[in-house]
Amino acid sequence: MKTPAVLDEYPSVVDAVISSLLDHVQPPLCHMITYHLGWTDRNGEPVNGSRGKRLRATLCLLACEATEGDYHHALPAAAAVELVHNLSLIQDDIQDDDAERRHRPTVWSIWGKPQALNAVTAMHGLANLALSRLGENGTPFSKQQYSQRLLNETILKMSEGQYCDMSFEKRLDIDVNSYLDMIESKTAALITCSMEMGALLGTDEGSYIEAFREFGRNLGLAFQIRDDILGIWGVSEQTGKPEASDIANKKKSYPLVYAMQTAKGKAKKELIEIYEKETIEENGFNRVLNILKSIGAQAHSQEMAEEYRDRALVELEGMTLSPQASSNLRELTYFLVGREF
Amino acid sequence: MKTPAVLDEYPSVVDAVISSLLDHVQPPLCHMITYHLGWTDRNGEPVNGSRGKRLRATLCLLACEATEGDYHHALPAAAAVELVHNLSLIQDDIQDDDAERRHRPTVWSIWGKPQALNAVTAMHGLANLALSRLGENGTPFSKQQYSQRLLNETILKMSEGQYCDMSFEKRLDIDVNSYLDMIESKTAALITCSMEMGALLGTDEGSYIEAFREFGRNLGLAFQIRDDILGIWGVSEQTGKPEASDIANKKKSYPLVYAMQTAKGKAKKELIEIYEKETIEENGFNRVLNILKSIGAQAHSQEMAEEYRDRALVELEGMTLSPQASSNLRELTYFLVGREF
Repeated sequence: MKTPAVLDEYPSVVDAVISSLLDHVQPPLCHMITYHLGWTDRNGEPVNGSRGKRLRATLCLLACEATEGDYHHALPAAAAVELVHNLSLIQDDIQDDDAERRHRPTVWSIWGKPQALNAVTAMHGLANLALSRLGENGTPFSKQQYSQRLLNETILKMSEGQYCDMSFEKRLDIDVNSYLDMIESKTAALITCSMEMGALLGTDEGSYIEAFREFGRNLGLAFQIRDDILGIWGVSEQTGKPEASDIANKKKSYPLVYAMQTAKGKAKKELIEIYEKETIEENGFNRVLNILKSIGAQAHSQEMAEEYRDRALVELEGMTLSPQASSNLRELTYFLVGREF
Repeated sequence: MKTPAVLDEYPSVVDAVISSLLDHVQPPLCHMITYHLGWTDRNGEPVNGSRGKRLRATLCLLACEATEGDYHHALPAAAAVELVHNLSLIQDDIQDDDAERRHRPTVWSIWGKPQALNAVTAMHGLANLALSRLGENGTPFSKQQYSQRLLNETILKMSEGQYCDMSFEKRLDIDVNSYLDMIESKTAALITCSMEMGALLGTDEGSYIEAFREFGRNLGLAFQIRDDILGIWGVSEQTGKPEASDIANKKKSYPLVYAMQTAKGKAKKELIEIYEKETIEENGFNRVLNILKSIGAQAHSQEMAEEYRDRALVELEGMTLSPQASSNLRELTYFLVGREF
């Protein structure tokens, strides 16, 4: 599936806003952040490498443009959601002991976990400071205030989602509803926040802001289910993560929750035996992949992701929007549920 | 030294505000926070134990009252600084591998470091959400905005201070100025923020807000130097920390920075040899205490703390304030530089 051109449109302008915020952070603390963002190497020297998709920023700016807003007014919000996303990545890597991301050592595996946590703290401050720039573009107080509340409610929700995701690793009784609640907090909340803030900064029309919130929520769920598929069947060179890492980490991702509910008899018994053990050995690892194959878990998961994608598109089609931004949003939505990375 | 009565005045009303914020956080995530705050045991059951001094909240509310404000208007700010202080404690314990605080196991030593980090994230969200309640009391938007910016600049500064403090553990070349810069960010920034916000919410008089900022900065420096003294010579039953823990952790606290600059000949050489090793053995530990004694490091550190205390008091005496709050602030300032815990 071809990467939509719109994903190339905003990253450099968003990164420029983040960069101007980072001017206030002392080296070498700021080097952990610029390294993670893909701007520098571990010594703070500029590099040209993968910087991540800046997807949440793009969704925020597109929502603003789609509602006839000037996307420049939403740049502080786009920078804020991108900072929150990236601090959550640095922290996830610490929590999961993941040594690599995007084919590079993670921040903690260079600077150590204690120092990496200081980068996370700094980014919490920076994300909120980004939002306090909204007023510079003439955004009314009430919208600034709403954005700040929304961002911090989202941070709170993300912590709850991450708490659940990690506690699910030790449990076998996760049903689809608990799973959906978990990913709604862990992943969909920030995508929702990005699109809702973008629309809020583009229009005063409440029904459009509400529709973008629902668009974001459904797209966020679809995005995470696709992520779960890549976490098992994704190709390491494309995802930048080890093969089938979600199985090794005992993640209760959608394909596995589906398997636990669907598998019968011997397969079900085996699944439980494998996941009851402290770690999953190679034998069990391959057996899980076989069971998932036998019940068609990949195809079923993809159908589920596409169902949420279609619900997102219903919200999009229900609005009268700027045609260019609307078409970009449609293309991006299809891409996110078919992407290989 | 007698604990000032004013320290009993505000904690319950501040905790009530924090508690109403915590109503929005799901169990069991919220149990980590209520446990840390001293409200509950590890199962979320209420306990009566040490809750900490709520010092930053008290300073914030006193600054508001001293400037003829209604302290109720500053309660959201008091809750915010207390949440930031407490999230920094949970994170410090993770970073320093400290298993005990206030005679209880630390959050991470019960729930594990990965889950404890989710409590820290939640508290970042909550601290900012606390501030968004300022408007409910009729605080003008410009003051809300100023407070939010100040709080997040403070979070950023704290991350820089903590970064320096930790990097100093591996260094021998720390001079007094670098040390003062470090504690100004690590500790004084939040005390400054607490008093500045309190004054801002109490008065429109810029010179008073500025004076409270300077008051807080000097008090914060004095407070940390006293903390450094307790970190070496404090009594474990009173501080709730292991005896001379700062030496065991190779902290470049003020007495040690002073010793590195002042010790001569054999003593200096020994100090360097001891601190160049990866860990400090019992022999070296006692030798450090002897060297500190021989150069009068404790008395000198106390003089330094009192110097900053007196600078703080100059700011206080320079203002015409509500007499009761002013006298409470004076008493508290003396106490903080003479306290044993």
